[in-house]
Amino acid sequence: MDVLVPFAASEPKTRLASILGPDERAEFARAMLADVCVTVSSVDVGPTVLTTEPIDCEWPTVIDDRPLSEAVNARLDPPTAVVMADLPLATPAALSRLFDAAGDVVIAPGLGGGTNAVVVRHPAFYTAYHGASIADHRRIAADAGLEATTIDSFRLAVDVDERGDLAEVLLHGSGRAAEWLRTNGFEVATTDGRVGVRRR
Amino acid sequence: MDVLVPFAASEPKTRLASILGPDERAEFARAMLADVCVTVSSVDVGPTVLTTEPIDCEWPTVIDDRPLSEAVNARLDPPTAVVMADLPLATPAALSRLFDAAGDVVIAPGLGGGTNAVVVRHPAFYTAYHGASIADHRRIAADAGLEATTIDSFRLAVDVDERGDLAEVLLHGSGRAAEWLRTNGFEVATTDGRVGVRRR
Repeated sequence: MDVLVPFAASEPKTRLASILGPDERAEFARAMLADVCVTVSSVDVGPTVLTTEPIDCEWPTVIDDRPLSEAVNARLDPPTAVVMADLPLATPAALSRLFDAAGDVVIAPGLGGGTNAVVVRHPAFYTAYHGASIADHRRIAADAGLEATTIDSFRLAVDVDERGDLAEVLLHGSGRAAEWLRTNGFEVATTDGRVGVRRR
Repeated sequence: MDVLVPFAASEPKTRLASILGPDERAEFARAMLADVCVTVSSVDVGPTVLTTEPIDCEWPTVIDDRPLSEAVNARLDPPTAVVMADLPLATPAALSRLFDAAGDVVIAPGLGGGTNAVVVRHPAFYTAYHGASIADHRRIAADAGLEATTIDSFRLAVDVDERGDLAEVLLHGSGRAAEWLRTNGFEVATTDGRVGVRRR
């Protein structure tokens, strides 16, 4: 099965701008990409990074600067999996559950209505990554009469976009992204509610 | 196995005060409690609600107004599970994975470092629900030489404390809490990033 890992190479992770500079965001995004590719490699034949511009990378890349859904749909030759590049908590076990689940379409929801990973086994399915994509993807599958399965995984649900997500990486991560945060002075900070992060 | 569902009956869910009035928060908290108890009942012998004050409730209750960890630890006779009352996305499948997993202690992490559900099979374990409790619970297990297992579940990770969590209930919920939100005018609202909620 082909596994695509889409990567926005230009100005990644802008919602982390309050706490990371532009170069830091680029470094951290690359650390997360590496974590995802290492994990995919450990359970499958190897990822292909679908990047918006050329990057220096240990894994095969294809370049496509079109919007995400268009670039993905152009390469959605079943069976194909699409795994987002900002899932540093993904583990081999979580990805194996995704890849091994039955269904024409297998979806791992992300926080806030996203679709963090999907396995596509039928040519009638296509992606629509905007807004509450989880609802759109369920509808696209239903409209085509396809069986859609959902994977219940915290590790695949946490995409790292916002400051609060960094706490999840520090609490549950063990790869390059977690290491990058620790090396760059981040630590969990306990507040009244959920744990956050602070920087030394 | 005993299943305790701790419930803070007095002024629940204060972090939802920006969007729900006091009576609404109480109603919504009770809807979530009912969802959890229905789900527990469907996979086990039945929950016991551990409440801080008397409530009118379909399930057996015990009253204890001490702080959460104290009240829970007083009743942690192995095997016992503790499942939080604000997990309206919990499904029978997710709880079965939790209850059936091997380990002296089985933990379902919550967003932001919480411990949303735990199965305790050894008397040396005790709970400490404050701050990053997931880290404390791992340490308590390790210090006692116990095998701690982690369950990877989005549905058990989403405890509903903050406004953004309501979007998860609307997107993924099918019980009384989701119904309460819909009846009371809530709908998902698409923004640039994660989906939020608005109220009609």
